[in-house]
Amino acid sequence: MAEKHGLQKERLGFEELKMLLKAIFVKNGTAAETADILAENCAACERDGALSHGIFRMPGYVDSLRSGWVDGLATPDVTALGPSFLRIDARNGFAQRAMTAADPLVRRAVRETGAAIVAIRNSHHFSALWPDVEPFALSGYLAITAVNGLANVVPHGGRQAVYGTNPIAFAVPVENAPPLVVDQATSVMANGEVRLHALAGKPVPEGTGIDHDGNPTTDPHAILAGGALNTFGGYKGSSIALFVEILAGAVTGGQFSFENDFTGYPGAQTPKAGQLLIVIDPNRGGSMNFEVRLACLCAQLADAGQDRLPGARRFANRAAAEKSGIPIAVDELQRLRALAGENA
Amino acid sequence: MAEKHGLQKERLGFEELKMLLKAIFVKNGTAAETADILAENCAACERDGALSHGIFRMPGYVDSLRSGWVDGLATPDVTALGPSFLRIDARNGFAQRAMTAADPLVRRAVRETGAAIVAIRNSHHFSALWPDVEPFALSGYLAITAVNGLANVVPHGGRQAVYGTNPIAFAVPVENAPPLVVDQATSVMANGEVRLHALAGKPVPEGTGIDHDGNPTTDPHAILAGGALNTFGGYKGSSIALFVEILAGAVTGGQFSFENDFTGYPGAQTPKAGQLLIVIDPNRGGSMNFEVRLACLCAQLADAGQDRLPGARRFANRAAAEKSGIPIAVDELQRLRALAGENA
Repeated sequence: MAEKHGLQKERLGFEELKMLLKAIFVKNGTAAETADILAENCAACERDGALSHGIFRMPGYVDSLRSGWVDGLATPDVTALGPSFLRIDARNGFAQRAMTAADPLVRRAVRETGAAIVAIRNSHHFSALWPDVEPFALSGYLAITAVNGLANVVPHGGRQAVYGTNPIAFAVPVENAPPLVVDQATSVMANGEVRLHALAGKPVPEGTGIDHDGNPTTDPHAILAGGALNTFGGYKGSSIALFVEILAGAVTGGQFSFENDFTGYPGAQTPKAGQLLIVIDPNRGGSMNFEVRLACLCAQLADAGQDRLPGARRFANRAAAEKSGIPIAVDELQRLRALAGENA
Repeated sequence: MAEKHGLQKERLGFEELKMLLKAIFVKNGTAAETADILAENCAACERDGALSHGIFRMPGYVDSLRSGWVDGLATPDVTALGPSFLRIDARNGFAQRAMTAADPLVRRAVRETGAAIVAIRNSHHFSALWPDVEPFALSGYLAITAVNGLANVVPHGGRQAVYGTNPIAFAVPVENAPPLVVDQATSVMANGEVRLHALAGKPVPEGTGIDHDGNPTTDPHAILAGGALNTFGGYKGSSIALFVEILAGAVTGGQFSFENDFTGYPGAQTPKAGQLLIVIDPNRGGSMNFEVRLACLCAQLADAGQDRLPGARRFANRAAAEKSGIPIAVDELQRLRALAGENA
């Protein structure tokens, strides 16, 4: 019965889902402004079909807030260190609140100098990265961002975890098309996917990770119990993971992934990490129109047989959800309403 | 006899090798200032044991110059488009000359604003990227650079070449240690290595590339004859190759890799491409000393079993060469002297 129940879906409008999620954040000790930002972010992931960062994450947010590991009431401290450089201490709050606070200053810096660097430290990031870069592409800018996280990825050739899954994202505008948006972990597989394999009792593919002793394994339990994931793409992917660790953990003045320690906060799940954002006005480089040039590149990729561009599936899901609502399983919805303190 | 001869090595000092290479560039139509820059760059690759970009490249430089495809006399046109943004038209000359012209302006921009973006277009890059970023790390800055090239890499899931080998490099300073320097192609294998396999009649590993019809092949000849190399790391590596194509080909206002066409210039080898450079003052982000933090990260990597850090081998080769000279095969040296118009 539970399974049949779980298959029933209710369709919610974006604002309706967002308001429910906002109520959960507020109920669990988050300031209204921050709750609004996080609810918008999480509802957008669900709407776009980026389900691993949608409502699936809500219990983790709630447990982290309740444990005291993350401060839902924190207000970020933004300092301009030069016309192109913003430093933000998120004061143990959420990275998205810090990003929102910086947004007008970032845009001014890009207009005035051609580029902006935003270095956020002491911040928690528990969502996808594409929501942080897509708005800049929609404004005609190129944006790159990277965050580090909890150490669960082994450097190539090593025997224990040093890096987080260290995702990197970028977004650029394309003429007469949605922006091109890439958002990918530098681990070979997402940690959540390893958990799904463990629950299903299925081995992971060879090359996914190592066990506690540093030996290769296809047992997802061994990877999760003191083992580690590999980086994607061998030593070259490992260099990209290293670069993310440097940008997000060191340039920001933040923590390295291996410095995270929430053992005193039972239930905590959000990685306390750093985030670096680089925004560039892509039309200063030359006399050609950047968006037109990107459309030319996308046409060439289609000609070469790459018919689905990064981010395209999300935009298709978004269009469908805007037409007919965001489908949520009825039992999921009941759990969300319970987290918000509403009667199910 | 030839092989025995080839095994004999002469040891040259750095300045001696540089002066010989400079004479070759000047002899083949390069302005003295540009010749000095390219000779320094090429001699440094040879000294550091980065042999695929050392004297091995000289015939390609010479053939490109003689064909008229690249202009050895070009002077770059540098425009400041804002306090953080430099645009350079290399005017069909070498990228390294453009980079050198911009250097004082880049450093001023980083000092004054915290960051600099340099967008070079209409430029030829035929060397490694590490010489472009290492000097900034030696000055305490973080530098990232990327160039595109000749289309010989297929996007993941596609059936024909769109990208160049599109290398990306970064360098950062480390306390009491040489800088950490990464320089890697986004193709799974360097094109030169495919050529070596073809010459030796050896197959390349599975996953290296595709043939003219878009089918996977381990035949190096098929990859070189209208086929293409794969990107490293599957779809994630392909996204990085795409990002390099965007940064170097579009933000710069330059050419995409697939727009290169030197069919009218027999012998030409240098890719006419764009190059983007981002330099950041990594100490603005936080109150901690960046170089100390990087030493901490490197120590953690060593603990995890990654005992050789990116760039370390080059610095070891450099130290050895500074002590006892740069070993060059006698027959190679004769060929170089002939290119310089000297008696062998």
